[in-house]
Amino acid sequence: MGAVVTHAQALSELLGGELLGNPLQAIHRIGPLDGADALTVSFLSNPRYAASLAQSAAGCVLVPHDQRAAVSERPSAILCADPYLAFARLTQWWAAQSRTPVVPGVHASAVVDASAHIDPSAHVAAQAYVGARVHIGARAVVGPQCVLEDDAVVGEDTVLRARVVLGRSCRIGARGLVHSGAVIGADGFGFAPEAGRWVKIEQLGAVRIGDDVEIGANTCIDRGALEDTVLEDGVKLDNLIQIGHNVHVGAHTAMAGCVGVAGSARIGRHCTVGGGAIVLGHLELVDHVHISAATVVTRSIRKPGQYSGVFPFDDNAAWEKNAATLRQLHAMRDRLRALEKKSS
Amino acid sequence: MGAVVTHAQALSELLGGELLGNPLQAIHRIGPLDGADALTVSFLSNPRYAASLAQSAAGCVLVPHDQRAAVSERPSAILCADPYLAFARLTQWWAAQSRTPVVPGVHASAVVDASAHIDPSAHVAAQAYVGARVHIGARAVVGPQCVLEDDAVVGEDTVLRARVVLGRSCRIGARGLVHSGAVIGADGFGFAPEAGRWVKIEQLGAVRIGDDVEIGANTCIDRGALEDTVLEDGVKLDNLIQIGHNVHVGAHTAMAGCVGVAGSARIGRHCTVGGGAIVLGHLELVDHVHISAATVVTRSIRKPGQYSGVFPFDDNAAWEKNAATLRQLHAMRDRLRALEKKSS
Amino acid sequence: MGAVVTHAQALSELLGGELLGNPLQAIHRIGPLDGADALTVSFLSNPRYAASLAQSAAGCVLVPHDQRAAVSERPSAILCADPYLAFARLTQWWAAQSRTPVVPGVHASAVVDASAHIDPSAHVAAQAYVGARVHIGARAVVGPQCVLEDDAVVGEDTVLRARVVLGRSCRIGARGLVHSGAVIGADGFGFAPEAGRWVKIEQLGAVRIGDDVEIGANTCIDRGALEDTVLEDGVKLDNLIQIGHNVHVGAHTAMAGCVGVAGSARIGRHCTVGGGAIVLGHLELVDHVHISAATVVTRSIRKPGQYSGVFPFDDNAAWEKNAATLRQLHAMRDRLRALEKKSS
Repeated sequence: MGAVVTHAQALSELLGGELLGNPLQAIHRIGPLDGADALTVSFLSNPRYAASLAQSAAGCVLVPHDQRAAVSERPSAILCADPYLAFARLTQWWAAQSRTPVVPGVHASAVVDASAHIDPSAHVAAQAYVGARVHIGARAVVGPQCVLEDDAVVGEDTVLRARVVLGRSCRIGARGLVHSGAVIGADGFGFAPEAGRWVKIEQLGAVRIGDDVEIGANTCIDRGALEDTVLEDGVKLDNLIQIGHNVHVGAHTAMAGCVGVAGSARIGRHCTVGGGAIVLGHLELVDHVHISAATVVTRSIRKPGQYSGVFPFDDNAAWEKNAATLRQLHAMRDRLRALEKKSS
Repeated sequence: MGAVVTHAQALSELLGGELLGNPLQAIHRIGPLDGADALTVSFLSNPRYAASLAQSAAGCVLVPHDQRAAVSERPSAILCADPYLAFARLTQWWAAQSRTPVVPGVHASAVVDASAHIDPSAHVAAQAYVGARVHIGARAVVGPQCVLEDDAVVGEDTVLRARVVLGRSCRIGARGLVHSGAVIGADGFGFAPEAGRWVKIEQLGAVRIGDDVEIGANTCIDRGALEDTVLEDGVKLDNLIQIGHNVHVGAHTAMAGCVGVAGSARIGRHCTVGGGAIVLGHLELVDHVHISAATVVTRSIRKPGQYSGVFPFDDNAAWEKNAATLRQLHAMRDRLRALEKKSS
Repeated sequence: MGAVVTHAQALSELLGGELLGNPLQAIHRIGPLDGADALTVSFLSNPRYAASLAQSAAGCVLVPHDQRAAVSERPSAILCADPYLAFARLTQWWAAQSRTPVVPGVHASAVVDASAHIDPSAHVAAQAYVGARVHIGARAVVGPQCVLEDDAVVGEDTVLRARVVLGRSCRIGARGLVHSGAVIGADGFGFAPEAGRWVKIEQLGAVRIGDDVEIGANTCIDRGALEDTVLEDGVKLDNLIQIGHNVHVGAHTAMAGCVGVAGSARIGRHCTVGGGAIVLGHLELVDHVHISAATVVTRSIRKPGQYSGVFPFDDNAAWEKNAATLRQLHAMRDRLRALEKKSS
């Protein structure tokens, strides 16, 4: 990574807040409040961390407007409507400054079918494989050892990191980011039983991914059985997620790591699914549903809100007692009823 | 994919049911009842969807015999003993018609050890790696960027999609299908503790996989510690599954995505394991055991049947109350007993 | 694998125990007690398996000192303070004997940036990709199709199996072992919300891994947002684990398959986390905490010990009744209180 050398005023111009303190305060680093030095820009988004702010040596801090008094003595500060958002934008600028820019072109070691269309401004890295009739849009980046099967489509400005598989006829839109090891377009899991054996249902659909979608490392998105599996615009998926065939994920929905969504589930827009949660097949979740981590969703959810279902952990001895008793719960209810009847 | 052009009679000859309606009804597409047009073949396997059937414009439908009356006015229909099975066979035929056939041979960019045996009818795709003494059977397909380590064996007609790892001395039988990113034969997780550190137990066994096995994307099957990890014939594993060392999975057992099976578990034949379920180590499940999604199997199961164990999800506020109370459950039982005693 | 031919005395010299019986007892195999023959060395670490020992035909057995009488008539035996540990060391010796040694050098098909430093004693296998300024230490092994992004560091004697991704600026120390498909250094999952959309927080940290660390197949370890994600020395991770950004895992902690650790969690030293467990973000677990399989850790743990939280599974009918009743648990508690009040 290249070094970044800037100063407080440049950052305030970039981020658009109100600058306090020394406009020429030099900034060479970006980091958390704890451990920051005078050359570091940092941020406070949650008033809970006000103590960290007070103790931090950071040369510049992004803070909300209500912290004006708290930062009046600091070397420099930028008052923002939403410091966390400003911080996000700052990281983007920082990355753009410090990372090696991608050069257009196809590496000599890539294997590219003659019928593929690769925009001249795109980059295809070493050892990538590009199948027949693949289409790679302007400024897209195909990382080392990616496999783009026949008829796959990569939209403009989309980046596939190393070792991504984009299966036959699968499409991802513009400005996407797919992390290493993700597999888009493996077969959905479909079999018809016949006399104790499983007869494969060939998966004839594909995967269709909108714009501005991010997909985590080693995440799998299966192709549909007859129609396509769909991720709408702005969906964000973390690592090691399984999306079954024919699932439909609405726009701007985000899922944390290790989530599993079974086949034909339909998840609304602006939902969040916590890490390790499971959504069973053929269910429907409306927009603005939030599933807590490790919750198992066993029926459709028709009403926006937060939903949870996790066994509360405890020290092992206490858990064992309560878990054992849980198996008598229905009987306990009956006993409670009997007592109530008796005492009434 | 190539276009498929057929007609109702050809399909009925292929699938073997009784044809009603116009034998020359043209069929160019396969799809669900909803959204079908006159050139689409579709199917009804569950009478619950009879309304979809009535409203569907599908030119041909596969239905059970008891739907004879319901389809009498349709352009064409095929009465079958098991429409879902007929549909499965139809998808196989469809895929065979529409997909590019594989050509025998080894791509120039593959790296193949001189001691490997590759059947002349097999296909080894671009950038694959084939180690010493590997054996690849007739008509097998090794996809782009697969890694076959020394002494691995791929049976006849088995297909490895892109980026599959088949580890040293691991074997897969005939007619298998392994999806992208699967890792067969990584080390099992075994360590002996010594003074607070972990001493590695080298994993000297391998993985032995029978015929007609399907393995999902990014699924991991560890090699055995001393003996082999075994998947018997007809096993079907979905994506992102972890199979620990020395596990034995009986024939025709199927597991959905994100399942974890810990070391030395022994799972019977014709079992099913729902998505996200966990089976602890050294347990034994007899044949015909069915584990519900997200269930944690903590002891052996000696009797066929359906087993479940999932915390019921609820809106967050209701869940919080019940979960908090759960930690007092054992005490509640004691209080209930005391009341019962008092009132008796 | 090459054949191993040894005898009981050689093993006792290697492992350091007390040899009983025939010192020249030939040993060609290593295996479990069940199924062993006269040429097999086996071990007993748990007195529960004493019956297997009695029935085993193994030519040599590693047993604890208190089994002296039980082995007095056997062909040979080695009394050890810790037979399981002795067995671990034996497997290491066995693997070293039987596996093909790695030859130093870079395979012609690898793509290596001119600025990379590869120790002459290291091995870079076929089709590997080595980016700019990468450093590969003495005797390290980079397996087929690994991707080492710019500025990555691989310590001495560390082995990366096939298809490992070590991301930009990520480092692993000495004597590590990383299994196929692991992705070290994908972006952490961080976004700031803005008017219903997600704005990416670029992940500017890296991953820093100590010495003697093992990482399982298809496991993902995300890079930090601003600072590094850290695995200290001696950490052992099984397959398909997700480690979020900025997580800190203390030395000699081990995690079984399918665990998920959310961002910024801090896990102590000498902890164990059972398969499928989930640790939520920003929590802290002190040293010597043991989490049972499939437990969801929802708050920090300040005290060493074993912690659990799993819904007890049951046959489906019994589970359904108890699970349904569970949703009334808080109300039941109130009813119980009312009864207690009434009866007092």
